[in-house]
Amino acid sequence: MTRKHHDVLVGAIEAGGTKFVCAVGTGPQDLQRTEFPTADDPARVLSQVTDWLGEQQCRRGTLQGIGIAAFGPLDLHKGSPTYGYITSSPKLAWRNTDIVGAVRRVFPNIPVGFDTDVNAATLGEHRWGNGAGLEDFVYVTIGTGIGGGAIVGGQLLHGLVHPEMGHTLIPRVPGDTFVGVCPYHGACWEGLCSGPALLKRSGMLAEQLPPEHEAWALATQYIAYAVANLVCFLSPQRVIIGGSVRKAGLLGEEHFFQMIREKVQVALNGYIVSPALNEEIGAFIVPPLLGDDAGVCGAIALGQAAIA
Amino acid sequence: MTRKHHDVLVGAIEAGGTKFVCAVGTGPQDLQRTEFPTADDPARVLSQVTDWLGEQQCRRGTLQGIGIAAFGPLDLHKGSPTYGYITSSPKLAWRNTDIVGAVRRVFPNIPVGFDTDVNAATLGEHRWGNGAGLEDFVYVTIGTGIGGGAIVGGQLLHGLVHPEMGHTLIPRVPGDTFVGVCPYHGACWEGLCSGPALLKRSGMLAEQLPPEHEAWALATQYIAYAVANLVCFLSPQRVIIGGSVRKAGLLGEEHFFQMIREKVQVALNGYIVSPALNEEIGAFIVPPLLGDDAGVCGAIALGQAAIA
Repeated sequence: MTRKHHDVLVGAIEAGGTKFVCAVGTGPQDLQRTEFPTADDPARVLSQVTDWLGEQQCRRGTLQGIGIAAFGPLDLHKGSPTYGYITSSPKLAWRNTDIVGAVRRVFPNIPVGFDTDVNAATLGEHRWGNGAGLEDFVYVTIGTGIGGGAIVGGQLLHGLVHPEMGHTLIPRVPGDTFVGVCPYHGACWEGLCSGPALLKRSGMLAEQLPPEHEAWALATQYIAYAVANLVCFLSPQRVIIGGSVRKAGLLGEEHFFQMIREKVQVALNGYIVSPALNEEIGAFIVPPLLGDDAGVCGAIALGQAAIA
Repeated sequence: MTRKHHDVLVGAIEAGGTKFVCAVGTGPQDLQRTEFPTADDPARVLSQVTDWLGEQQCRRGTLQGIGIAAFGPLDLHKGSPTYGYITSSPKLAWRNTDIVGAVRRVFPNIPVGFDTDVNAATLGEHRWGNGAGLEDFVYVTIGTGIGGGAIVGGQLLHGLVHPEMGHTLIPRVPGDTFVGVCPYHGACWEGLCSGPALLKRSGMLAEQLPPEHEAWALATQYIAYAVANLVCFLSPQRVIIGGSVRKAGLLGEEHFFQMIREKVQVALNGYIVSPALNEEIGAFIVPPLLGDDAGVCGAIALGQAAIA
């Protein structure tokens, strides 16, 4: 991304499993937005989205780019015949949906950036949030699912496909026999700690769980194992944890983060010598500065990055 | 690394937990080498090393650079007062050893490159081995310890410190109560699958273990869990597994790799859609092309990269 395109007017589409958040603007301080439910009719949802972007363009002026941040799995390989598609999504109605093509047909002359929702949120935090100025950090979201994005050497990590951090495997707390909720892996990180996992384990939504409920002790322990693992695999300068579960309802966000920080230190047991993992751990494991806007801001950044 | 320095004469020091491998040369086809045991007297070992490099310089001409690839943890931050040190190593005699300083005192005018042994081996495989041409891959070594290095976007991943992949935590196989051998984490990946772990579990060296011994089934299962995790965290195009344990003695290297490939596929359970993880997994999880020379070749590459 060249700096000259940083503050230009672009459109943003954050395609989530529950809702599409659309925006036009130049950054977090300048966003007009709207939302549409992710109904089981992709063609209709996508024309609601493009109609709205067209209206905004009439009001605010020509969009210089459009960024699309979508739930996956996605085809991100530019040479591929299905580039820009949502591919094998568990949301059946959205399988094999050409989301980039639908936008390009309406805006043929506007460059389009496309990435996963969690990669976009990572980019948003890198540009305007708690990842600003860092060369290496990880953004994790814990909500309906668990996902993670990484900035490595200042660039988004893509690799073979894209990371699927929520599906990593972690040790069990002795005596915990909860089978997990992941249809692919049962008790992977997502299977143990996503919002639906907390609900299935406790019968309560995360927002309703009493602070002393065992589900919080277990979730923070498993999250700490996974964070310790991502520290050992990726050596980030910071780990940002977003998503709805991290708000931690009656337990409170700060208490939730403090439990995770302490348990990460116990898991690593002083092996990696760095102030960031020891006396400065309060600045190492943090919530997103952009809060719930990390994704839509990331889509803005994707749109700006798409400008040649 | 600028290409012009690719084939110049440099010195290489691969500081391993068991032995120091020293070499001078220009690449894998041109290496003179020797070895010294990693005795509990760092000053003496390091003067054996610098003496030998001095002798080689008299015979072959001026070394243009020296690369040092060392077991860790290391301080790799150039501004730090302990840059070039082995820091909190489990090898007590080597804790807080200024390995770069010891080399610089003897060769004050020669640029020195310094990285972890496993990062160097990763660089060696990227330059001359099974990582050549790849933008994103992981190199893992399983021997006295377990370590991993990653090339991400064509560059070595460093981050906050450097990866410590061997110290990641994995699920237990039900019924396996082996306490592990890691002094920091007990039954982390290294604690369960390193050479000393196999020895403690079975009473036999890896080379002597019968193919049907349970220790192989367990080790390949745990390695598969860890490889599945690194696939989900880093999305590599390939995973190269080196080190002594992967030779797998009486079991045989090919059988060992095949067991890991099958168990990785079971662990991922088809979630990540890519030919590399399915029909092409035989080319996805492979031994190093440079074999046991990945580390020393990587130290050559580090020495060449240090030349301004």
